[in-house]
Amino acid sequence: MKEFKKYLKKLKKQPVLVVSHESPDGDAIGSSIGMGFLLKELGFEPLVINKDLVPEKYSFLENNIKIKKLDDLNQNEKLEKYLVFVMDSGKLDRIGFVLEDIFPKYVGIINIDHHISNDFFGIKNFVYPKMAATSEIVGSLFLDLIGYIPSEAATAIYTGVMTDTGNLTYESTTSATVALVSILHEMNADFNSMRKFVYENESIGQIAGVRAILNNLDYLMDGYIAYTYLNYEDILANNLTAGDIENYVDYPRKVSTSEVAILFKEFTKDEIRISIRTKSKIDANKMAAGFGGGGHKRAAGFRIKKPLNEAIKFALNKIVEGLKNNEWNN
Amino acid sequence: MKEFKKYLKKLKKQPVLVVSHESPDGDAIGSSIGMGFLLKELGFEPLVINKDLVPEKYSFLENNIKIKKLDDLNQNEKLEKYLVFVMDSGKLDRIGFVLEDIFPKYVGIINIDHHISNDFFGIKNFVYPKMAATSEIVGSLFLDLIGYIPSEAATAIYTGVMTDTGNLTYESTTSATVALVSILHEMNADFNSMRKFVYENESIGQIAGVRAILNNLDYLMDGYIAYTYLNYEDILANNLTAGDIENYVDYPRKVSTSEVAILFKEFTKDEIRISIRTKSKIDANKMAAGFGGGGHKRAAGFRIKKPLNEAIKFALNKIVEGLKNNEWNN
Repeated sequence: MKEFKKYLKKLKKQPVLVVSHESPDGDAIGSSIGMGFLLKELGFEPLVINKDLVPEKYSFLENNIKIKKLDDLNQNEKLEKYLVFVMDSGKLDRIGFVLEDIFPKYVGIINIDHHISNDFFGIKNFVYPKMAATSEIVGSLFLDLIGYIPSEAATAIYTGVMTDTGNLTYESTTSATVALVSILHEMNADFNSMRKFVYENESIGQIAGVRAILNNLDYLMDGYIAYTYLNYEDILANNLTAGDIENYVDYPRKVSTSEVAILFKEFTKDEIRISIRTKSKIDANKMAAGFGGGGHKRAAGFRIKKPLNEAIKFALNKIVEGLKNNEWNN
Repeated sequence: MKEFKKYLKKLKKQPVLVVSHESPDGDAIGSSIGMGFLLKELGFEPLVINKDLVPEKYSFLENNIKIKKLDDLNQNEKLEKYLVFVMDSGKLDRIGFVLEDIFPKYVGIINIDHHISNDFFGIKNFVYPKMAATSEIVGSLFLDLIGYIPSEAATAIYTGVMTDTGNLTYESTTSATVALVSILHEMNADFNSMRKFVYENESIGQIAGVRAILNNLDYLMDGYIAYTYLNYEDILANNLTAGDIENYVDYPRKVSTSEVAILFKEFTKDEIRISIRTKSKIDANKMAAGFGGGGHKRAAGFRIKKPLNEAIKFALNKIVEGLKNNEWNN
């Protein structure tokens, strides 16, 4: 963190771009907006973007800092000589587009992340796997460099930390994470709005989505694996976005017997997105890597280009075999 | 809090009993065990009891301090001249039995609670409605009086605070609450066991219970009221206890439109238990008081001695009318 602080302090004024991964979750949004505020405090005029629209439940975070959709950028914005801050992305392709194609004059990438699977794609790589969220990195930097956090930035960082740690209950949480959240409270992070917009904002469709994944819930290896799926029809009928579904994997995870919880998501008919959560014995990041994906020890993901039922069969077979061979033990 | 500290410091050695409310939740268990440890550190030999058995998901908290079931006490234990610490109970009848009947020689009640509805039934009443949990009161006392918290006590207090605040997201949470949790982390509260036993410990039956309340979910006043119920048959078939069900009211609460979330629980055919949660405009404690119950501004409960469908009709009619007459506004 010291190196990162020194780097930011010495950074000469220039156009800066902040981008996070596509289908942004709370930590992608929170760390992007938080970093936007931090760069502003340091005298920059950051452009904050994402390939995708900010999910409605996180839109309350967009006040002084907006996250522009890639498609909505104008030609001038694309032609700046940006230094690009890539947030919360283990691999560069997670941003969902090729930087060169959209920003032909960008000068370099600053890689800011907490995923242990990060492959160091930047000219500078500030990767801290001990941080529970990329937003925690931004919060710590803010306090160290500026000494306070403006309320709006605090709300964004709070949202990122809470959503990425299961409200401070996941193994990744440290006493430093909780201490930061306590400071964010003192900095007037709007935790009531966060709860209301992020956690108490389910539509009838989202409730129907939960009902579907509970109905599809099944078990393997005496419940050691608990898995479920959401098919294309249910996603479409209930108007579900990636953001709506991101925490549904918590349901198979909650089952007492399950060490490995899996959610298959059929957003498109030809590519299935899979979320994995593990509890204590199996390394989810290693498991996902076996399928070309990545993430953390307890939470990871990958994709399979097959129809849903084939993807389920293929993944579960490989996972059962891998577990039996102790391939992904911690 | 100063008065409470002074009181505990000056308390002469005598038999002490710690009891909390029947159907104990995380805060009842956490504050009882926490208080047990604190009294031990202060040189007492507390007897910690409850009318009911500790729910299985909280049993990991019982190591050096066990919570005895009322029925399992022997005659000697009943005949001591106890000073009785009543934890987390707004009214004395919440403990589920008459103190005089079981402990004929008890000398007085110390009432320790954070419910705003508390009716000051003790010879001393240490009631702090600004505390997010009774366990938070115990944690603060521990730090002030002893300066540290033994790991096991920290785990119990952590469990009480987290379960009573929706993992630090409810309106009742203050930066002091979060700061205490950060200290509990440093005191080696076993947050991984808490998550595993309390949050990741659902049985197939509990999952079926959630499915049932999602199927029974309905709305009134354009979704301003979201309510659901669990009937006797579903409770029985899925082997559900009060502890299993305590957070099911979070599902109607999560619906974006709902200000008032209600869960009807048919544990017995002749008495329905009702949980209310409100978000920002309606005082749940005032609403519950209209039915002879109580609790907090955002979370309260009451009971109705009618068959389930009659209780639902009766309560909803009265609630709709009360809301239309602005009877329970904050």
